[in-house]
Amino acid sequence: MKRIDQVKGTFDQDKDKRRTAPSEATVKRLPRYSRYLARLISGGTLRISSSALAEKMGVTASQIRQDLACFGDFGQQGYGYNVRYLHHKISRILGMTAGHRAVFVGMGDAARALLASPTFVRGDVLAVAVFGAEGVGEMAEYEMDDLKQVLPTLGATLAVLTCRQGAEDILKTLADAGIQGVLNYTNTPLVSPCGEMTVKNVYLDDPCLLLCYHMEKAREDVE
Amino acid sequence: MKRIDQVKGTFDQDKDKRRTAPSEATVKRLPRYSRYLARLISGGTLRISSSALAEKMGVTASQIRQDLACFGDFGQQGYGYNVRYLHHKISRILGMTAGHRAVFVGMGDAARALLASPTFVRGDVLAVAVFGAEGVGEMAEYEMDDLKQVLPTLGATLAVLTCRQGAEDILKTLADAGIQGVLNYTNTPLVSPCGEMTVKNVYLDDPCLLLCYHMEKAREDVE
Repeated sequence: MKRIDQVKGTFDQDKDKRRTAPSEATVKRLPRYSRYLARLISGGTLRISSSALAEKMGVTASQIRQDLACFGDFGQQGYGYNVRYLHHKISRILGMTAGHRAVFVGMGDAARALLASPTFVRGDVLAVAVFGAEGVGEMAEYEMDDLKQVLPTLGATLAVLTCRQGAEDILKTLADAGIQGVLNYTNTPLVSPCGEMTVKNVYLDDPCLLLCYHMEKAREDVE
Repeated sequence: MKRIDQVKGTFDQDKDKRRTAPSEATVKRLPRYSRYLARLISGGTLRISSSALAEKMGVTASQIRQDLACFGDFGQQGYGYNVRYLHHKISRILGMTAGHRAVFVGMGDAARALLASPTFVRGDVLAVAVFGAEGVGEMAEYEMDDLKQVLPTLGATLAVLTCRQGAEDILKTLADAGIQGVLNYTNTPLVSPCGEMTVKNVYLDDPCLLLCYHMEKAREDVE
């Protein structure tokens, strides 16, 4: 496998200029770019043109260029993208290099599934502790009653909520301890009690509903 | 709680006219509309204006009108939306009333979490069998080796894949048995072997990555 520093190139990503703010749709494509680039890296690919990247990912080259242009100038005319560099930059944009530490409140199936995902397996986000349930791997385990006292000592930034009981009180405790983001897997929408903490309500059946929509549509198109 | 038939209204949803094709973003908002309307129904709300619906859902009224106009004329000037009717129509558009039957190949944590989601709990999609693992509730259980033989007898339309081993062969077997949609939770992207079957690769850490992005952005905005 060739090493990245064998290839020279200039990248002007740090130009301090106003860029188009990324749309929500652009942001939502970033994890996909990141995943695909990670696969290219493990396959030993050093660089790729936007058209080759586009073809493999099923989007247009101009879409990729437009998406990435929101964040910087990552490509080079006639060279394409430096895969490792682009992957690193996207990881940084996604906050994957920020050293996030996650606590788990409850350990429902969704939490276990999340722990088995690349983001946690690779340690991009570190699972540090679980409250009110048995942990997985090397996580510290605490009683739910210890949440208020222990949480501020853990340096956690993220919380994963699968415990439905007392969810609103738990959210307040999380906010008081300086947690900045919460993944809510309780199937009940929750609202952040303060502006400093973002709550993301995750609905695991959404992909299933969207798949059923596309199946329905495929059937209509045939009829 | 008032009954829906106490309210009269005319709805021209069945007009056979060409409508704007819904964008992917519009389609992705449908599960959210459906969830919110279901909550309104259980709270006894009979009708709602697009502006009230918009305010509660954090989108604009014109967005809602535009989204729904892709599928039909669901509102009535000066009346708003009939909640139960709109919920039923969105459910139908999403294929939730099509009587889907799902088989589970493997029973990983993601599959268990999905089974606890409203779509499966309400029975909008029926979990009929599991292969190669212990089932949950009343699902029939089969050996993985029985997949090819048993699958065609189950009347299944959907498959939920959490078993990574032999995933490509499994996909071919699913396609041969007439499965129309596959939710792939193996964290490895899979491509459908035929045009009649849609494979949706689901990445459970995507919401976590997007949350981290927004946390990063919130931090930048403060600095």
